[in-house]
Amino acid sequence: MKLLRVGPVGAERPALLDEAGVLRDLSGLVPDIDGALLADDAALARLRGAAASGELPRLDAAGLRTGPPVARIGKIVCIGLNYHDHARETGAAPPEEPILFMKAPDTVVGPDDTVLVPRDSVKTDWEVELAVVIGRTARYLESDEQALAAVAGYAVAHDVSERAFQIERGGQWDKGKNCETFNPLGPWLVTADEVPDPQALGVRLWVNGELKQDGTTADQIFPVAEVVRYVSQFMTLYPGDVINTGTPAGVAMGQPEPKPYLRAGDVVELEIDGLGRQRQELRSA
Amino acid sequence: MKLLRVGPVGAERPALLDEAGVLRDLSGLVPDIDGALLADDAALARLRGAAASGELPRLDAAGLRTGPPVARIGKIVCIGLNYHDHARETGAAPPEEPILFMKAPDTVVGPDDTVLVPRDSVKTDWEVELAVVIGRTARYLESDEQALAAVAGYAVAHDVSERAFQIERGGQWDKGKNCETFNPLGPWLVTADEVPDPQALGVRLWVNGELKQDGTTADQIFPVAEVVRYVSQFMTLYPGDVINTGTPAGVAMGQPEPKPYLRAGDVVELEIDGLGRQRQELRSA
Repeated sequence: MKLLRVGPVGAERPALLDEAGVLRDLSGLVPDIDGALLADDAALARLRGAAASGELPRLDAAGLRTGPPVARIGKIVCIGLNYHDHARETGAAPPEEPILFMKAPDTVVGPDDTVLVPRDSVKTDWEVELAVVIGRTARYLESDEQALAAVAGYAVAHDVSERAFQIERGGQWDKGKNCETFNPLGPWLVTADEVPDPQALGVRLWVNGELKQDGTTADQIFPVAEVVRYVSQFMTLYPGDVINTGTPAGVAMGQPEPKPYLRAGDVVELEIDGLGRQRQELRSA
Repeated sequence: MKLLRVGPVGAERPALLDEAGVLRDLSGLVPDIDGALLADDAALARLRGAAASGELPRLDAAGLRTGPPVARIGKIVCIGLNYHDHARETGAAPPEEPILFMKAPDTVVGPDDTVLVPRDSVKTDWEVELAVVIGRTARYLESDEQALAAVAGYAVAHDVSERAFQIERGGQWDKGKNCETFNPLGPWLVTADEVPDPQALGVRLWVNGELKQDGTTADQIFPVAEVVRYVSQFMTLYPGDVINTGTPAGVAMGQPEPKPYLRAGDVVELEIDGLGRQRQELRSA
């Protein structure tokens, strides 16, 4: 299923994009799309049945905003330098084990919402990422099978990053990762059953129409199953948590000087095979 | 006011400790103690009036668990190396500007709940901290006055830390800061009007009865107002967010070898002047 949330900020309703590409209203069946729903097999089965019946009410998509596809995200764990080509472009050695950092859930916006360039920012950068949405409590997992069983589905994430804040302001990366609007998510949560191989997805990003990132999750240093298993050794993952699994080469930081960091007025588009497309215009905070 | 939440995990009710030390039930007046309440001046005024009337129902404190004093925390921003004496003991130069890292809200437990030593941990460490609870949306604040006006109140936090995960496992500190149960909070949220000078608070921690940390917030490199103002340049703070403002000297990492890291069976007690006392027993995850 392609699950999504549509409507004004803070008042989104749950919806489904059916196999014919028709937007269907789920608000008569479930209150929202969140960790509680993703952990509830019976509720998900009811949604599947309703979708197959073709009887769900249609929603008119025209003019309708798409919100983030998951409400009440508990935490966002991010993996740093997780593509061979991106590690090379930053001049870093490939990490021996996953690098973890955090984004606050309040950075999440819809896939086409405005992204704000922070005040005093001169190094706002882009990063298209495969987001993993957790559907089962995951704690000290022991195998890839257990890890993949904890995954509810996948989505496109934009891990917007301010490189000066991240790297030049003393200490930890989080300082450049948590600015408001810095995590567009969606359009859809595609349930895991429809993503048979998360390591075979093309991942692309354009700035002002120019292709900047053109990678594949096959190049991930630590694949999804290993990332989920690994993270669960250090923290407990709960339904509705998100893991941003890293970005391929092609970010602004990896380009020759003058590096083409984002400015107000720029337009960023992102897509991942089968997971849909985002489009954000940048404005000044 | 001393606000708190009492009852079983996940089913806490809002309460107040009045000036005579009597526990009073607030559940007839407000649904919970969270960001929405802390941002609502009229609701807080009603609580004050009810407390002054002496007519709030009594609660029997005997056998009642104390939960964390704030529900639905949005994010926890932590300040690293924020005491002169702690920076010295770790061998680090005092930072030129605050170091920020993040803890997930799901690490929060009550002040006397069990703390779990993670599996494969050999360096679980303690850190008593002054926690600042936000009551107003704070974004690009310009002055200390604005910063302090955004503070709803203060609490004791235990920023439990696994040093090997934090420092020796590649990359960012977050890996050693987000283990389950790693952020006991409370017992109370003491409203800011009852903490006239947050830079004059004694901060103490004992392990198995032995005093390990004995500091004062007067030794903070970046005081509360500066921390709140600074953080608001990089991320938006919302009501119900928490900032852990750093720890004074005396952590296990700062001791001579063999460093006395925590083990199952150890008991940690923490207190801050006027903010109450915590007591946790450690067990194995």
